[in-house]
Amino acid sequence: MADNPVRRGWLGHLTRRSVLAGAVAGAAALPAVAAGSTAALATPSSAAVPGLRTARATGTTHRVTMYAEALPGGLYGYGLAPGEATIPGPLLEIVEGDTLEITLVNTTNQRLSIHPHGVDYDVFSDGSAFNDSFNEPGETRTYVWHTRERTTSAGRAWLPGSAGYWHYHDHAYGDHGTQGLQKGLYGGLIVRRKGDVLPDKTFVVVFNDMTINNKMAPETPMFDAVLGERVEWLCIGHGSVDHTFHLHAHRWADNRTGYLDGPNDPTLAVDNKDLNPGSSFGFQVIAGEGVGPGAWMYHCHVQFHSDGGMSGVFLVRNEDGSIPDHAQEAIDRYHAGHGGHVGHSGHGG
Amino acid sequence: MADNPVRRGWLGHLTRRSVLAGAVAGAAALPAVAAGSTAALATPSSAAVPGLRTARATGTTHRVTMYAEALPGGLYGYGLAPGEATIPGPLLEIVEGDTLEITLVNTTNQRLSIHPHGVDYDVFSDGSAFNDSFNEPGETRTYVWHTRERTTSAGRAWLPGSAGYWHYHDHAYGDHGTQGLQKGLYGGLIVRRKGDVLPDKTFVVVFNDMTINNKMAPETPMFDAVLGERVEWLCIGHGSVDHTFHLHAHRWADNRTGYLDGPNDPTLAVDNKDLNPGSSFGFQVIAGEGVGPGAWMYHCHVQFHSDGGMSGVFLVRNEDGSIPDHAQEAIDRYHAGHGGHVGHSGHGG
Amino acid sequence: MADNPVRRGWLGHLTRRSVLAGAVAGAAALPAVAAGSTAALATPSSAAVPGLRTARATGTTHRVTMYAEALPGGLYGYGLAPGEATIPGPLLEIVEGDTLEITLVNTTNQRLSIHPHGVDYDVFSDGSAFNDSFNEPGETRTYVWHTRERTTSAGRAWLPGSAGYWHYHDHAYGDHGTQGLQKGLYGGLIVRRKGDVLPDKTFVVVFNDMTINNKMAPETPMFDAVLGERVEWLCIGHGSVDHTFHLHAHRWADNRTGYLDGPNDPTLAVDNKDLNPGSSFGFQVIAGEGVGPGAWMYHCHVQFHSDGGMSGVFLVRNEDGSIPDHAQEAIDRYHAGHGGHVGHSGHGG
Repeated sequence: MADNPVRRGWLGHLTRRSVLAGAVAGAAALPAVAAGSTAALATPSSAAVPGLRTARATGTTHRVTMYAEALPGGLYGYGLAPGEATIPGPLLEIVEGDTLEITLVNTTNQRLSIHPHGVDYDVFSDGSAFNDSFNEPGETRTYVWHTRERTTSAGRAWLPGSAGYWHYHDHAYGDHGTQGLQKGLYGGLIVRRKGDVLPDKTFVVVFNDMTINNKMAPETPMFDAVLGERVEWLCIGHGSVDHTFHLHAHRWADNRTGYLDGPNDPTLAVDNKDLNPGSSFGFQVIAGEGVGPGAWMYHCHVQFHSDGGMSGVFLVRNEDGSIPDHAQEAIDRYHAGHGGHVGHSGHGG
Repeated sequence: MADNPVRRGWLGHLTRRSVLAGAVAGAAALPAVAAGSTAALATPSSAAVPGLRTARATGTTHRVTMYAEALPGGLYGYGLAPGEATIPGPLLEIVEGDTLEITLVNTTNQRLSIHPHGVDYDVFSDGSAFNDSFNEPGETRTYVWHTRERTTSAGRAWLPGSAGYWHYHDHAYGDHGTQGLQKGLYGGLIVRRKGDVLPDKTFVVVFNDMTINNKMAPETPMFDAVLGERVEWLCIGHGSVDHTFHLHAHRWADNRTGYLDGPNDPTLAVDNKDLNPGSSFGFQVIAGEGVGPGAWMYHCHVQFHSDGGMSGVFLVRNEDGSIPDHAQEAIDRYHAGHGGHVGHSGHGG
Repeated sequence: MADNPVRRGWLGHLTRRSVLAGAVAGAAALPAVAAGSTAALATPSSAAVPGLRTARATGTTHRVTMYAEALPGGLYGYGLAPGEATIPGPLLEIVEGDTLEITLVNTTNQRLSIHPHGVDYDVFSDGSAFNDSFNEPGETRTYVWHTRERTTSAGRAWLPGSAGYWHYHDHAYGDHGTQGLQKGLYGGLIVRRKGDVLPDKTFVVVFNDMTINNKMAPETPMFDAVLGERVEWLCIGHGSVDHTFHLHAHRWADNRTGYLDGPNDPTLAVDNKDLNPGSSFGFQVIAGEGVGPGAWMYHCHVQFHSDGGMSGVFLVRNEDGSIPDHAQEAIDRYHAGHGGHVGHSGHGG
């Protein structure tokens, strides 16, 4: 325990997030954020937007216990305590130099695992059946993920570090190790670089086959922010279908952070980006900047996918936390439209 | 009118383009370019390539009236005057800091709208049925798009401005607001940054389902330039099918402008790029540089798409404006091959 | 011959590669590398990793003869000598400023050609039927590819040079010139920039419809390296299906080289990237860096594609060249799983 005390506020903004304590005796808590769920609408964040905070490197080893569980409807999820599995699973957030030790408890009757993108792991933590790295039904197993800073390899050539908007998922369920993804065994993983700007809140959007977070409109997540908040999006693709992620009225730089590295950074700005199986990206926007509060759509821009229910709502509240009338009306139209009365509720495009 | 006079030459090169005057009394003209059409072949630009010109910021508010119209064959288009609708619609071109006020006249019997990518708009200009922002049949409605420069948010972190190769489209036709795209309600939108290099001409290529600009070979646009001209391509994806755009014998930097920001810019150079629904990109090439005049193919590199007619011709003329014999022969083969006599006219690959 | 002597070591590392001499009298040898084949497993490279070497520009004209040949199973390939055609064809590697003159001998009874990406060629070397640029059955024809450095076009604006991870392929087989790709007529082309870091070895991975290098698991290439070697991957997409390339336990910068241009380079790091028809990218990793030796999967991350056999093995040996026990066991599981006994051999995800 000595090397891994509960560090409330170690990223400087923990008080605004849910710290989910590890449930196994002796395990310290990993700072983590419940992935964007519709429940967030009921408990909006305060509008306070303090000065910018940046990530600090600590080289900490975080130990967390995760539970893979069966959920209603044939779904599966990861959670940080028994009975708390969600789809997507908990957002894991660390800083380059940190190590994550994940003790995965498999409460199901299926072989499964946890496999990360973007971080370092040896073959025993690969999470693949190929490397004999998985949990049998009922088994508990620990996976270790290391991270590191970028390193110079020769003159101008630097090898990238671990920082990025990544994700994790099962890699062992079913004959080919690919069925857990369909059923919800995935989540977000953010590795920050020392000095990266921290957001006020983070949303996780997973385009998984023809669903968003295994849901279809109008059951897809409604993400909720207050005008001026620095909102971070982590977008992940899974399954067997290609998509494009579009967010109305906001745009970002198509690079590691979503913001430019200086006034002459030639990076492309986008508001629509391919989101295909196994890929992920993230960015930060200032909610409603230059466009005001309102209900803004996010959706797959492949037209028959948005027609089919791959859309959701990004609610930007007034500065005082109230919902603009026009936003409430849009949300009402959206729900009515997807409940059988389509009419003027079109959500695609 | 005072704040928005007709500014012929405000971008420094208007004399080489068609200025399409707004048709509604009191509305000033927006500098705009007819989207690349085969008609351009009949009136090639002169070969003159003067010194490089760059975009200047003026903070102007441009007012333009657009007309959504039904076209033969069940198609629809936008135009800058009644009876002049085209597919794609007129190319709209502004500079960061400008505002565009578009008065859309819906001459059709369908609900429709105009929705932009990349710029700022409030919910009333969202163009979506979701936000009750559309034109009923016969209705006229004004949409306002704002733009801004990049802004620093913290130290090295800069939020991107509006500059980019964007597009606009209907977002309200049909139950899901996605049917207007299929029928041709889309166009290009370029927001330049102060100092950006201006092209001699701009081509707009829209991969829309299995068509290019709602046409198939050999009816797809033939783009026409003279050796050495600085030619700009704006590529837009729409519909429900994924594509890759390939241009023969020319390449570009995969960033905001298509050119590098200095000799050590590590940006990837490409001659083939994903072009999926809702995405867009642009670039400039020097026509025929290093490869000479000729008929060069552009096409979707997904093989069964190019087999099916997603290809076209980029004609690079001799410096004196004449067409090389080998180019005319290639064009003839192309038309013969798509008229039933396939033989040696293969156009894919 | 005087301008093009056999230059063993002209890229500084030729002794570690196979120099395949041109087979036509009078033609000098092009330094080239046999594309990664499973045969490499039988003859692993030594573990020696000397100091970093970088590409030098020489402005050389390389002349090479290639043979297009029919192969068993209805396949076709390119080779550097009669009877030596492979899928993919030989890796061609040059430096910006070089010229490649390829004399293509068509030993088949089909019309075909060679068409490159990323380099300069006139219409007579376009390799397309459209430009009457192909080999009739039995015909020999020479194609010339030029390269150049980036050039300034105005102030900060630089036009990209030829450097990149490119490819070549047939563009004339069949009515539409697209059937040669299906049958194996493709290969890798690398154009380096002066000063680029040279790898110890290069692997070529082509996602072509539902195959990797026209093979499916477990017949896909096993790539073989020693811990600490600088390994270069050239990834190419072909056919009519979209894919995402994923490599376990290694990541790279999503730019021209795969490494960062300095400590503040904002380029995105990825371990999963779209690989669609006509596109290509490359990168270098240090084999097993931070993760150790072992058998690591590379695969398409579209789940039904990996389920269907689009996966392979990247073997990272111990520093002494031996194979770790766990790696051999994984390889054995992989082969058993794809031989009918699936069980715990899942290879997707």
